[in-house]
Amino acid sequence: VSPLLSDLIEALRCLPGVGPKSAQRMAFFLLQKNPQAARRLSHTVTEALDKIKQCQDCRTLTEYDRCQLCSNNKRNHQLLCIVENPMDILSLEQAACYDGLYFVLHGHLSPIDGIGPNQLGLEQLQDRLAQNTIQELVLALNATVESQTTKHYITAMVQNKAIKIASLAHGIPLGSELGYSDQNTIAHAFHTRQELAE
Amino acid sequence: VSPLLSDLIEALRCLPGVGPKSAQRMAFFLLQKNPQAARRLSHTVTEALDKIKQCQDCRTLTEYDRCQLCSNNKRNHQLLCIVENPMDILSLEQAACYDGLYFVLHGHLSPIDGIGPNQLGLEQLQDRLAQNTIQELVLALNATVESQTTKHYITAMVQNKAIKIASLAHGIPLGSELGYSDQNTIAHAFHTRQELAE
Repeated sequence: VSPLLSDLIEALRCLPGVGPKSAQRMAFFLLQKNPQAARRLSHTVTEALDKIKQCQDCRTLTEYDRCQLCSNNKRNHQLLCIVENPMDILSLEQAACYDGLYFVLHGHLSPIDGIGPNQLGLEQLQDRLAQNTIQELVLALNATVESQTTKHYITAMVQNKAIKIASLAHGIPLGSELGYSDQNTIAHAFHTRQELAE
Repeated sequence: VSPLLSDLIEALRCLPGVGPKSAQRMAFFLLQKNPQAARRLSHTVTEALDKIKQCQDCRTLTEYDRCQLCSNNKRNHQLLCIVENPMDILSLEQAACYDGLYFVLHGHLSPIDGIGPNQLGLEQLQDRLAQNTIQELVLALNATVESQTTKHYITAMVQNKAIKIASLAHGIPLGSELGYSDQNTIAHAFHTRQELAE
């Protein structure tokens, strides 16, 4: 292979989920089948790197100082949903179940990796809660052991404040068969079973 | 999502095998986890688009006038292997079974799509064969119905010339179970069965 083509294949391999064969396929696709798309990809990546930063209010990724959600007056500014990653906002917005604001931690507490409350913007969150506009906090963190400490930390932060705090429900995913759920999920769903109205 | 982030996700979706969810994951990865890799990707795509062209001898993709294989005097310049795509050269080189030169068609004959002998460089191939340096031609075309016409066309081109012509053998792939092979392959492998030396 030509050195430049190797470089291109190597550069594409950095993408998550792209192995050597897919990277080859992508490189030839970009060069042979769709040079316009390749040109656009290259341009957009550079532009996004140069312009996208964190929203000053919610820390999500945006090219504006305040993101479109935070500056949207039709959203309910009394509700705040805490997520670990900006991508989680996309998932929640696609679920169309929530019309409040978000706050992005960009990770979870992990002292061993040097990630403390400051890295997660929890001081900024504290200041925001002190303004008394938020009435309910919804924790939409990952349902992993690693995220538990963060959940407890934030719960402790709102104690003695007149703020409702909730976490997403855990249980059997809709549309899935019981046989495919792990035992922890089943046990949790059993213990938190919902009484049916008569 | 911010418009620029949408643009980036959209631009990544053009890659083969990348759906909406993978494109999202890739976009956040490039912006958050690995901006250096993103910068390099953007740069390499542009450089490759600007510099990579077809080798004047074999039509593979390269940034040189003559590719590294064609200009390598250690290769056997009397053998010529015909492939449909530049990627096929990678596969053959990885198999380390051949030390001759290549010729890339960039497709197969398909009059309905306006792809005739000229588009595949078959005139150039004819000129090359007329120089009498090539002694054996190996057809490594795809084993599809669509590539049959091309195979026959090239076979006809070398008739009445002192050039050996061969095609890759078809049969059961090594390491695979018979039960997973399709009936055409099995029938072909049966008819072309190899006598075992005693």
